[in-house]
Amino acid sequence: MQTQELLVTEESLDPVDWKSMRALGHQMIDDMFGYLESIRERPVWQPIPDQVKAELTQSLPTEPESPEKVYEDFVQNILAYPMGNIHPRFWSWVIGTGTPLGMLAEMLAAGLNPNLGGGEHVAIYVEAQVLDWCKQMFSYPARASGLLVSGGSMANLVGLTVARNTKAGFGLRTQGVQAAPQRMVMYGSSEMHSSIQKAVELLGLGSESLRKIPVDADFQIDINAMQNAIAEDRAAGHLPFCIVGNAGTVNTGAIDDLNHLAEIASREKMWFHVDGAFGALAVLSPELKPKLAGLERADSLAFDLHKWMSMPMEVGCALVRDAAAHHDAFSLTPAYLSHGTRGLAAGSHWFSDYGIQLSRGFRALKVWMSLKEHGVKKFGRVIQQNIDQAQYLAKLVNDAPELELLAPVPLNIVCFRFKANGMDDQALNELNAELLIRLHESGIAAPSYTELDGKYALRVANVNHRSRREDFDLLVETVRRLGNELLKE
Amino acid sequence: MQTQELLVTEESLDPVDWKSMRALGHQMIDDMFGYLESIRERPVWQPIPDQVKAELTQSLPTEPESPEKVYEDFVQNILAYPMGNIHPRFWSWVIGTGTPLGMLAEMLAAGLNPNLGGGEHVAIYVEAQVLDWCKQMFSYPARASGLLVSGGSMANLVGLTVARNTKAGFGLRTQGVQAAPQRMVMYGSSEMHSSIQKAVELLGLGSESLRKIPVDADFQIDINAMQNAIAEDRAAGHLPFCIVGNAGTVNTGAIDDLNHLAEIASREKMWFHVDGAFGALAVLSPELKPKLAGLERADSLAFDLHKWMSMPMEVGCALVRDAAAHHDAFSLTPAYLSHGTRGLAAGSHWFSDYGIQLSRGFRALKVWMSLKEHGVKKFGRVIQQNIDQAQYLAKLVNDAPELELLAPVPLNIVCFRFKANGMDDQALNELNAELLIRLHESGIAAPSYTELDGKYALRVANVNHRSRREDFDLLVETVRRLGNELLKE
Repeated sequence: MQTQELLVTEESLDPVDWKSMRALGHQMIDDMFGYLESIRERPVWQPIPDQVKAELTQSLPTEPESPEKVYEDFVQNILAYPMGNIHPRFWSWVIGTGTPLGMLAEMLAAGLNPNLGGGEHVAIYVEAQVLDWCKQMFSYPARASGLLVSGGSMANLVGLTVARNTKAGFGLRTQGVQAAPQRMVMYGSSEMHSSIQKAVELLGLGSESLRKIPVDADFQIDINAMQNAIAEDRAAGHLPFCIVGNAGTVNTGAIDDLNHLAEIASREKMWFHVDGAFGALAVLSPELKPKLAGLERADSLAFDLHKWMSMPMEVGCALVRDAAAHHDAFSLTPAYLSHGTRGLAAGSHWFSDYGIQLSRGFRALKVWMSLKEHGVKKFGRVIQQNIDQAQYLAKLVNDAPELELLAPVPLNIVCFRFKANGMDDQALNELNAELLIRLHESGIAAPSYTELDGKYALRVANVNHRSRREDFDLLVETVRRLGNELLKE
Repeated sequence: MQTQELLVTEESLDPVDWKSMRALGHQMIDDMFGYLESIRERPVWQPIPDQVKAELTQSLPTEPESPEKVYEDFVQNILAYPMGNIHPRFWSWVIGTGTPLGMLAEMLAAGLNPNLGGGEHVAIYVEAQVLDWCKQMFSYPARASGLLVSGGSMANLVGLTVARNTKAGFGLRTQGVQAAPQRMVMYGSSEMHSSIQKAVELLGLGSESLRKIPVDADFQIDINAMQNAIAEDRAAGHLPFCIVGNAGTVNTGAIDDLNHLAEIASREKMWFHVDGAFGALAVLSPELKPKLAGLERADSLAFDLHKWMSMPMEVGCALVRDAAAHHDAFSLTPAYLSHGTRGLAAGSHWFSDYGIQLSRGFRALKVWMSLKEHGVKKFGRVIQQNIDQAQYLAKLVNDAPELELLAPVPLNIVCFRFKANGMDDQALNELNAELLIRLHESGIAAPSYTELDGKYALRVANVNHRSRREDFDLLVETVRRLGNELLKE
């Protein structure tokens, strides 16, 4: 009777046939390597057929399918219609390219599948090491704290949360923003990234508390205007508590005068946060490093590793100079999470005490493996190469009679448009918008766009380690051809 | 001269030798499959040697290393000291196990490496389909919106942000919490997860605005006490705006009376958020489903797919009944992100408009592949199996004279302790704390612990698809042995 009770049929989600699942893994390796190795021969982007979209509306699967069939569906419907950012002629928004070893690292991380919220296991030490490496890259103090996060938006949110809680001057975590005796006000340039505003809204400060200071002709923050705004806010009884400096704006790659901003923040006893989502990594290029002087003085620093460091998504990082302030902003340890002294629940780094996530994947592994694979100097060279390519493109644009550069090129972003005599801005805007779509549809290249002073700009943001100069030649040639074709229509 | 200028040496982060990198990929597949297939024969957990910790403090690599060497370091120092949650006898906190196909899916996702912030590419449609599947699993309205996120903490934050912004009754995104005419107050049980408090603090409401209502003997929220608290807050001039219902508390797996909470929220015109981090998935078990009645009435619902659905970290989900409210809480579209009508920048789903992240990885792929691989019915059976195993363990505990059950077992969590005649709670707490550490150090099993009514509890949270009844037999046998050994010392 006892025996019979124990003979319960138990099933698991492991493969019914380990051998065939392993074979499928090998098939995937071959397919993905073939795909990546020949990526240059494929179109950057192509429209998704309606039939594929229709297949992706089928309802919830109830019964099992063989892993081979599942993979076949992936190859047919998904692998064929990528975003395109792994292609050498993708320069839209600011999206990284990834690498083959980064891809493999993600598999290893998912196989081990640890939770880096905390505890005593080796993955925790890997993240701690990676954070130390990040501090070293930016000449940031070794005693600072840090956290790997999903990306720049989250890194900004982490930094600004610490800023808010630290500078409030009262128990904001318990009492809330409503208890603030003064309105807490932040400053950054009109070119700062939308994630800063999102963070301010999330934190309950209200976007009206975010002063968007005008920029100069180089799209850098107008520091006099900022100082005036701070003085006005003080006079109005508000509490200026935080300055956001940009290290590489998303529109044009502008870098604010970070040293000057750090000085003002220090004098005004304000928090200094640097949003270096992609641009901060330019410190790895000896040529560019001086432009970023002052970065290392930030109270908090946000940057991405999946952009200009070419790691697969998602991985960004927040560093905070005052580790205790960082801990105090997020730490919350109920009984079921209390930290032990020995065993699995010990461990010196409880990363869940430094951010929002409690379940945290092993994103550190791809960073660890990639930095060891290439060494930081090579990353610096490839970053410099992207900047040189941007200068090369800017020269091609300047040399082409039908093209017009719309902003300086201080970093790796080139904003330009096709122009024609006798067309006003509105007509040019329409022409360039159509031109860009045809460029995408051609599968040849994928810039994105933005608006600068009311002008529609084709925008090339080059964080692509696969791009070569010949790719920019082809871009310019194609833009000229498509523009002239549109003029004839 | 022109030619010479073009002969710039350009390098990339792609493999110098594609063939050997591909071979390395095959090696990793073999190693990881060998590792996972034999995981039952390994210790659950073991201490990390000091030498390994020391190696993980080496400074930032400057020069390249061969990928083979990097992988060797991984095998030696990392693969050998896992957290243990992929092992059949790991039941700490609530951490999922992962699956081999999930691991492979992560590799495919990282190879394609798209950004699911938005745009017109197929990955976006995969996430949309997965969200539709999630709605179907919970009988949630098809018109609802949703978002895949890192996990339950983030899903709770998304839901509560929409709650705050929607129920404030004024332009909170622009004006901030300070402009609120009344204190905004939230309600949940004293057993609710710490991430709710973290969210309340982040949102600027202050933890004092979170009412922790007592629970009954079954650890469910005392609804009368909650109604009294709401009435008192109204009388004090506050604005009760949100009720949080628990679908599976982290301490004991208790499920609040969700239908009753939904009724009260509706009557009081409050938002109803359900934190179903792991417990909500019990709807997939026909036997458990009735206990979760009312879940489908939530205004927002948070749950994890990397816990009881065994997908690799990180993946959770937030569903919001009112899609427009969800969009209004997060949407922010600067020029460089404006949505097109054709080309890459078109697309009907801009997920960045529904959450904090702008860079969003392809976590949807592992969900898509896993649900197709197993079908939802099998997930339901495995979830039911975990619950049956918890009942089985509870019976073993009740049958063992030295063991004491410390809470009811409504779901998959068993809290118990070793006890001995003549020892008070403090002595038992110390004994059980040491017992747990020795259990970890033995490598046999890894429960975690919590405190219930001042009693230190060994806590088995079973979301492990690899566990079998024999594993719980071994657990009980080992706890009894270790406890008796400790008594003798």
